[in-house]
Amino acid sequence: MVKSYLDLVKECDTFPYYHDDPEFYKEHLANYHSFHVSGCKAVLGYIPNAVVEKFSWPEHCWAIDAATRTVTLVAPQDAMPEQRSDLMAETLAQAVKGDDFEVLKGWRNEKYPIYGPGGQFLFEMERSATPLFGVVSYGVHATCYVQDSDDTSSLRLWVPRRSRNKQTFPGMLDNSVAGGMATGERPFECVVREAMEEASLPEDVIRANATAVSCITYHYVRDARAGGETGLLQPEVEYIYDVKLDASITPKPCDSEVEEFYLWTVDQAKEALANGEFKPNCAVVLIDFFIRHGILTPETEPDYLEIIARLHRRLEFPTASHAT
Amino acid sequence: MVKSYLDLVKECDTFPYYHDDPEFYKEHLANYHSFHVSGCKAVLGYIPNAVVEKFSWPEHCWAIDAATRTVTLVAPQDAMPEQRSDLMAETLAQAVKGDDFEVLKGWRNEKYPIYGPGGQFLFEMERSATPLFGVVSYGVHATCYVQDSDDTSSLRLWVPRRSRNKQTFPGMLDNSVAGGMATGERPFECVVREAMEEASLPEDVIRANATAVSCITYHYVRDARAGGETGLLQPEVEYIYDVKLDASITPKPCDSEVEEFYLWTVDQAKEALANGEFKPNCAVVLIDFFIRHGILTPETEPDYLEIIARLHRRLEFPTASHAT
Repeated sequence: MVKSYLDLVKECDTFPYYHDDPEFYKEHLANYHSFHVSGCKAVLGYIPNAVVEKFSWPEHCWAIDAATRTVTLVAPQDAMPEQRSDLMAETLAQAVKGDDFEVLKGWRNEKYPIYGPGGQFLFEMERSATPLFGVVSYGVHATCYVQDSDDTSSLRLWVPRRSRNKQTFPGMLDNSVAGGMATGERPFECVVREAMEEASLPEDVIRANATAVSCITYHYVRDARAGGETGLLQPEVEYIYDVKLDASITPKPCDSEVEEFYLWTVDQAKEALANGEFKPNCAVVLIDFFIRHGILTPETEPDYLEIIARLHRRLEFPTASHAT
Repeated sequence: MVKSYLDLVKECDTFPYYHDDPEFYKEHLANYHSFHVSGCKAVLGYIPNAVVEKFSWPEHCWAIDAATRTVTLVAPQDAMPEQRSDLMAETLAQAVKGDDFEVLKGWRNEKYPIYGPGGQFLFEMERSATPLFGVVSYGVHATCYVQDSDDTSSLRLWVPRRSRNKQTFPGMLDNSVAGGMATGERPFECVVREAMEEASLPEDVIRANATAVSCITYHYVRDARAGGETGLLQPEVEYIYDVKLDASITPKPCDSEVEEFYLWTVDQAKEALANGEFKPNCAVVLIDFFIRHGILTPETEPDYLEIIARLHRRLEFPTASHAT
């Protein structure tokens, strides 16, 4: 089945919108507990009720309220982020020991930060556990391309295929450079690091050619392709970069993440998109690229407005500021 | 007072968000009636209660329900858009005769289209009356610029000053080319038309150099600078174009809309933004340009995420598709 660009956006931005049907939205929220930390009013994420039931919450640091459907990490009033992080780590270690969750089998040993209102850093947690709590995660996606003239018909895109051995989305197509931002990392430094790790692109090439062009935000509901439990929530912020490369520069696989790089015309990339060959959040980065480069226009794309609004969703959780 | 970029975004995207405070949002909505046409369930806009009370609604074609706070244009079940347009025109003619509304003193003799779900064209109405009904309006904004190298330090922007005699936002700074889309008009054709009318830019120059790059959407609440009644709602869709011009091409005022064009550095434009010299929806088009061109980055702009999400608001009303 051929997928439209809006179909692809909906696979990535899947969580319902209040305004589409307020009653349905409220009923839908009853499937989740909201996640809090003590001393902070904000909802940090939504946890499916089934996950709440399955977790063995250490009593000394968790308050579960079935009536208000809230899960609260309870730390002393003057707790520093480190204390909350330790309590979370202890909780997750117990879940791993109990073999409670499929997603934790993909343990990454990378820490992701969680922010409160005003971008306040609250704590960090193991990356593979973030979908259990439905908290916002941050990443960078860069599209490397070659273009000889102002005309987009000369444009070629560097498209990698993910390793068939990856736990998540094996063998699917990806963006030229992409990766998650660990605690303390800044977007541009993350692009520089990932470009070397995944595409063997030297630091000086990225510093000279990568341009920050936007960010996309969406509320993803994990499906089977993501691995582990389905239905977990993953609201995401992806900082977007365009990297115009000289034709003499060729990205090459470096670590075990990427199998091969293709240099594709826009039409080849469009065909692979329509066939559903791209990882969902990489498909939408390419759609955003097509919009910003005048390849999709209001006259050619019937869902232009809906696509653009949904790729810049205002998440209902506090988000970080990565300004220095 | 120096305005931040987020301050400027908030002046343009002013209507509250449900998720910021659901209770406040619901209370706030009680200040409005929702606008419908018979046979279509969708809310097409919000009308302030004070406007509902002041209107002399011709009884044969309007149903006002104080309990549900709805205003419905009642047309025969098999009505064509033309019939609804005629009923609206009759209603507005009566309001003009009664001298009921300040905004109608700026009668434009231009028709704006209103769309239902799926982009269905429902009817058209006089442009100056659209804020009374809070319906979505559509326009194009183009930024003309000169850039000698890939480095944005060489970038210069063409910035016009609006005529001091304009009824709305007199003397404020504007985007190089901007205008509203009348019924039946397509975005690119609108840019071509406005570029000649406002900036004396020939059709071939625009066709060769204008690139569709995105759209911005926001929910504006009219303030005194817009002229007429304050507090009227104006959700807007602006299709965005970048026009890279050769240094030999100079935009010049043509009609009476523009007083003068400046060719400014990015720093000059930033200073004028901070001083609040731009028309609100033109300020945010420039902010969007700065983001897409890597002039504002996640590392330099603390409100990067909030700005981008709010400039791509998913409007809670049906919107048009302008695909051919």
